[in-house]
Amino acid sequence: MAGSYQPLPRAGDTCQLPLMCLLPPWAPPPSSFCLSSFRSQPRNPTLPFCTAATHSNADNESSLFRFQDVHAMVFVGFGFLMVFLQRYGFSSVGFTFLLAAFALQWSTLVQGFLHSFDSGHIHVGMESMINADFCAGAVLISFGAVLGKTGPAQLLLMALLEVVLFGINEFVLLNLLGVRDAGGSMTIHTFGAYFGLVLSRVLYRPQLEKSRHRQGSVYHSDLFAMIGTIFLWIFWPSFNSALTALGAGQHRTALNTYYSLAASTLGTFALSALVGEDGRLDMVHIQNAALAGGVVVGTSSEMMLTPFGALAAGFLAGTVSTLGYKFFTPILELKFKVQDTCGVHNLHGMPGVLGALLGVLVAGLATHEAYGDGLESVFPLIAEGQRSATSQAVHQLFGLFVTLLFASVGGALGGLLLKLPFLDSPPDSQCYEDQVHWEVPGEHEDKAQRPLRMEEADTQA
Amino acid sequence: MAGSYQPLPRAGDTCQLPLMCLLPPWAPPPSSFCLSSFRSQPRNPTLPFCTAATHSNADNESSLFRFQDVHAMVFVGFGFLMVFLQRYGFSSVGFTFLLAAFALQWSTLVQGFLHSFDSGHIHVGMESMINADFCAGAVLISFGAVLGKTGPAQLLLMALLEVVLFGINEFVLLNLLGVRDAGGSMTIHTFGAYFGLVLSRVLYRPQLEKSRHRQGSVYHSDLFAMIGTIFLWIFWPSFNSALTALGAGQHRTALNTYYSLAASTLGTFALSALVGEDGRLDMVHIQNAALAGGVVVGTSSEMMLTPFGALAAGFLAGTVSTLGYKFFTPILELKFKVQDTCGVHNLHGMPGVLGALLGVLVAGLATHEAYGDGLESVFPLIAEGQRSATSQAVHQLFGLFVTLLFASVGGALGGLLLKLPFLDSPPDSQCYEDQVHWEVPGEHEDKAQRPLRMEEADTQA
Amino acid sequence: MAGSYQPLPRAGDTCQLPLMCLLPPWAPPPSSFCLSSFRSQPRNPTLPFCTAATHSNADNESSLFRFQDVHAMVFVGFGFLMVFLQRYGFSSVGFTFLLAAFALQWSTLVQGFLHSFDSGHIHVGMESMINADFCAGAVLISFGAVLGKTGPAQLLLMALLEVVLFGINEFVLLNLLGVRDAGGSMTIHTFGAYFGLVLSRVLYRPQLEKSRHRQGSVYHSDLFAMIGTIFLWIFWPSFNSALTALGAGQHRTALNTYYSLAASTLGTFALSALVGEDGRLDMVHIQNAALAGGVVVGTSSEMMLTPFGALAAGFLAGTVSTLGYKFFTPILELKFKVQDTCGVHNLHGMPGVLGALLGVLVAGLATHEAYGDGLESVFPLIAEGQRSATSQAVHQLFGLFVTLLFASVGGALGGLLLKLPFLDSPPDSQCYEDQVHWEVPGEHEDKAQRPLRMEEADTQA
Repeated sequence: MAGSYQPLPRAGDTCQLPLMCLLPPWAPPPSSFCLSSFRSQPRNPTLPFCTAATHSNADNESSLFRFQDVHAMVFVGFGFLMVFLQRYGFSSVGFTFLLAAFALQWSTLVQGFLHSFDSGHIHVGMESMINADFCAGAVLISFGAVLGKTGPAQLLLMALLEVVLFGINEFVLLNLLGVRDAGGSMTIHTFGAYFGLVLSRVLYRPQLEKSRHRQGSVYHSDLFAMIGTIFLWIFWPSFNSALTALGAGQHRTALNTYYSLAASTLGTFALSALVGEDGRLDMVHIQNAALAGGVVVGTSSEMMLTPFGALAAGFLAGTVSTLGYKFFTPILELKFKVQDTCGVHNLHGMPGVLGALLGVLVAGLATHEAYGDGLESVFPLIAEGQRSATSQAVHQLFGLFVTLLFASVGGALGGLLLKLPFLDSPPDSQCYEDQVHWEVPGEHEDKAQRPLRMEEADTQA
Repeated sequence: MAGSYQPLPRAGDTCQLPLMCLLPPWAPPPSSFCLSSFRSQPRNPTLPFCTAATHSNADNESSLFRFQDVHAMVFVGFGFLMVFLQRYGFSSVGFTFLLAAFALQWSTLVQGFLHSFDSGHIHVGMESMINADFCAGAVLISFGAVLGKTGPAQLLLMALLEVVLFGINEFVLLNLLGVRDAGGSMTIHTFGAYFGLVLSRVLYRPQLEKSRHRQGSVYHSDLFAMIGTIFLWIFWPSFNSALTALGAGQHRTALNTYYSLAASTLGTFALSALVGEDGRLDMVHIQNAALAGGVVVGTSSEMMLTPFGALAAGFLAGTVSTLGYKFFTPILELKFKVQDTCGVHNLHGMPGVLGALLGVLVAGLATHEAYGDGLESVFPLIAEGQRSATSQAVHQLFGLFVTLLFASVGGALGGLLLKLPFLDSPPDSQCYEDQVHWEVPGEHEDKAQRPLRMEEADTQA
Repeated sequence: MAGSYQPLPRAGDTCQLPLMCLLPPWAPPPSSFCLSSFRSQPRNPTLPFCTAATHSNADNESSLFRFQDVHAMVFVGFGFLMVFLQRYGFSSVGFTFLLAAFALQWSTLVQGFLHSFDSGHIHVGMESMINADFCAGAVLISFGAVLGKTGPAQLLLMALLEVVLFGINEFVLLNLLGVRDAGGSMTIHTFGAYFGLVLSRVLYRPQLEKSRHRQGSVYHSDLFAMIGTIFLWIFWPSFNSALTALGAGQHRTALNTYYSLAASTLGTFALSALVGEDGRLDMVHIQNAALAGGVVVGTSSEMMLTPFGALAAGFLAGTVSTLGYKFFTPILELKFKVQDTCGVHNLHGMPGVLGALLGVLVAGLATHEAYGDGLESVFPLIAEGQRSATSQAVHQLFGLFVTLLFASVGGALGGLLLKLPFLDSPPDSQCYEDQVHWEVPGEHEDKAQRPLRMEEADTQA
């Protein structure tokens, strides 16, 4: 394709990609902004990024569509998944919007400083947009653990801290430890879940019983939540493969994710019927546990997991997650004093840890024979002979522990910060309630006229 | 990238694409899995698939986005389109999710065995994912005919049978008869619709009147259904063109589909107002008949239909489908004892048959002059001189009869199987009712508290 | 850019792209339809369009995905954004569907005649599909100003007129004045908004008070509207960059749009809380003003706006738009007698004008140093030395005035036409009411059993 017919760029060539720096307009012209070297290795060295003219436009352009799919997952998926609460829909979708919009700006700075800072400039582009959306995803996972019990000022402070820790944790794993984590089982799901769970533990409300009657769903709020579920489910193959190597690596990642999700859906329906009263299904399981298949292959989907492995992993994740919702969530609250509104422990925590461990296993089995030329893009350190497969596996495992450490310490710190009195936390009796934060229609003068009573209006007319 | 610098693969070169076989991890390494020959001809020989290194990564990658668009149509589109029933939303979207997740796994095996089985291995990749989603679409069309009157065990058994017959029918049409059917007017819509209708005939319930009061929609359930309609509508151009030849063929397919859908929307609004009481529009027509334009060009959209032809076909399909909902659905139930919940006969049955006939016509007019170089990808057998245009048209017509035969016999067989007593069919008075299969919020202890308690409203009324 | 490495096509070369003409099947074969010359310059001369075989399939194919993203914005985004009214959801989403389907067919003819008419044929393809969707967007913006107060016949007449004026205005700006407006701050947003507002002024209803009780939202209708908001928000980067030059230009456009939207979301939340009672947020602001960031960079996002500039512009737009909803909309109705149902003046009018002015500023600062090779694709006339940056800025400003003139005169003319008595305008007491135009469920025999009455359930509890 096009660009590939040209010679490699000379050292010092300026970059033809749309990399702009986060600088005001009076700074020197952009053509001098973009140098072809990065101080630190980007997440995936094979992605065409600031290596400029050697990549065709088609490669570059496709990254826009990968970004759009990830963007849809983060904003539509997470936003509507949390709308299930009967009187917290405005806050669920609204605060998701606010938090994600804030997190992606702040993360562009933090990740940029860590990954693409050069000569006083931060380089941005499609990869930074995708990475920032990944970070926003982690923040939204943590939001799920404290949903309904925190105000917007608390949430923004949480995001302010979490984005920094996410960036540092990601930098340690990917750049210092050389860990592979394409779809973020560790960096996104495990980190986001345990950060939020520990934070929720610190913010434990013994009197939450007062708001318990609003903690359930209603019929239509469950349907809205299914919009979130389906969008997360369908775009997960793009999410996990958004920053993998083009071609074989990306397709393998998408395939593994697709099989894993399909199997976790079957596992979830089966277990939900098994543990349900009279064999009836529970919407909470379907909305959430069916997605565990995407989490569990986050690390290993770009590796040679094989369809068989993906199906098995997905089925396992779906069943474990469903059992978690049924049996472990109540224990978590009663024994561990963790009030986990959305069950992020079941959807992101356990499947995330399982996914990290699966990554350890699959990385340990990597051979030149199995990967062929693809080894360079999946395990560059093994391909270059700097590391054995076993050593890579050990590093992967170590990465999990680092993530859990960052998440726990960060979550505890975050919880203490969020207890600051001026942050306006909702009272125990007003949790899961939109009216605390929003003008809800029908509250005021127009109450008399408040509707949906079509028939009534009809008879009066 | 790389690929484009390399010479063409030598015979026997292993495939660089991410084709993995459905084998457990202890099988021989994947590099030996993928040979560049297929036993049977793939649906579209020009799609870059396992012809490996001659295609750039960009071509390969784009297939991921085509897959994602099809995936969105199947899961969001079909899922929400069927949510229109007032008390069957959980089942509509939930069973769509279950059936599609099951069908795509099973179909990967069945289609793989028929289309890409080689030396004991099934080759998978983006094309198999798209094909499996197509098959899931057919299963969901059949689901529409029996919606509300079948339990999950019955539906899974239906899918088990239908996926096999879908695969065989598709194999007969595409590989044995050399029929062209890019968007599946025959293989997907006609097959799915008549399979479901015959099955519904066998399962005829004379006492369905007992559940008639739940068979309508409510205001918000109609809005949820419009989510499905709009997603089906917007992504149909990608659906019909998902497996066509890259470049001209794909663009022509998308264009024809786009024009046909736009025209069928106008036709539907016009007819709905014409036949409606006081000129008022009916949501059922808008939700469904406006989509008939996508069905009717399923076969011919990759051919030289011309925009004029696409507009005419779409307008015709929209009007025929609307008239079907208004006048033919009641006759179908009273005279033919077919209870067609979603009106799949109007949306997929009639427009599918019309689309197959349109394909016969347009194929019969094919000339070297009209297609130029594109003839090779649309009608390879005509281009190679093995078949005249008339002969192709006759084969297309024969394909329609084969499809109707497979669908009818299969649907009858399926209906008999689904009557097996242990499959737990809902009683006549509990059709179109979520509570049979789901824990519906507001059923239990939280009854005292917040609203939308349908049951209560019901009993008080 | 791909094609540029290859020799230009010889005069008379036939086009290999799927360009078909809007001709009936008995016309001469398509291979002669497509000549490589256009009578008028297309919107973006660097987009691979009808320069044919020099472009790779990958370039061509990617335009399908750009089209699909724009298509999703227009149909899902606009459709659901307007569903916020409590009893006008069927009409909002239904008439959006009707109007957009009509506008894109009519616009294909009008734009085709102005931009790609050659030897009696109109050339169509992905670019014409995207352009037609852009025009549909402008029509839907105008629809927002008169939402609830017009019948379908009136709306179709409005679209009939507006599409023609949109096409002429666009032709004057892009082809005659050489104005740049990639994302349509002027051609789409300013034009659509002021056309609709002037039209709404002419149709002023002094007795609209009679329908005021239906002008608000209800809880679930606000959640449906958020579907529209989020889809508009996430796909706006694709919208603004849909017709920009591939590669750097497209990425820069997407990046600027992304930053601007994120900043406008923060600005909107901040201002909404500031001006809200007790610091509470207003859904109307979040649903609408958060999108102003996409409008305000419509003209300048393809230019060297820099991330800093995009963030500042977005934040400003979000705040201005929120203040407009709070303070200016009531003034607009009381003093100027403009009843602006959706507040299009706040979301599209003011931000559109601001965006045009920002384009004037950024165009005036364009230098060869800042753009490098990209100058050719963004400002071809400056690159070729035909125009100075200052002259370009003056032309941009003139383009804004031309747009305002076309919109005002056209809107006034449209308003007079829509007053024709046989067009069946809803009476003052039946505005914002679906039952005038639709069969609404629960109207007839099933009245007794209809549920979902929240208040009723509330008052009984």
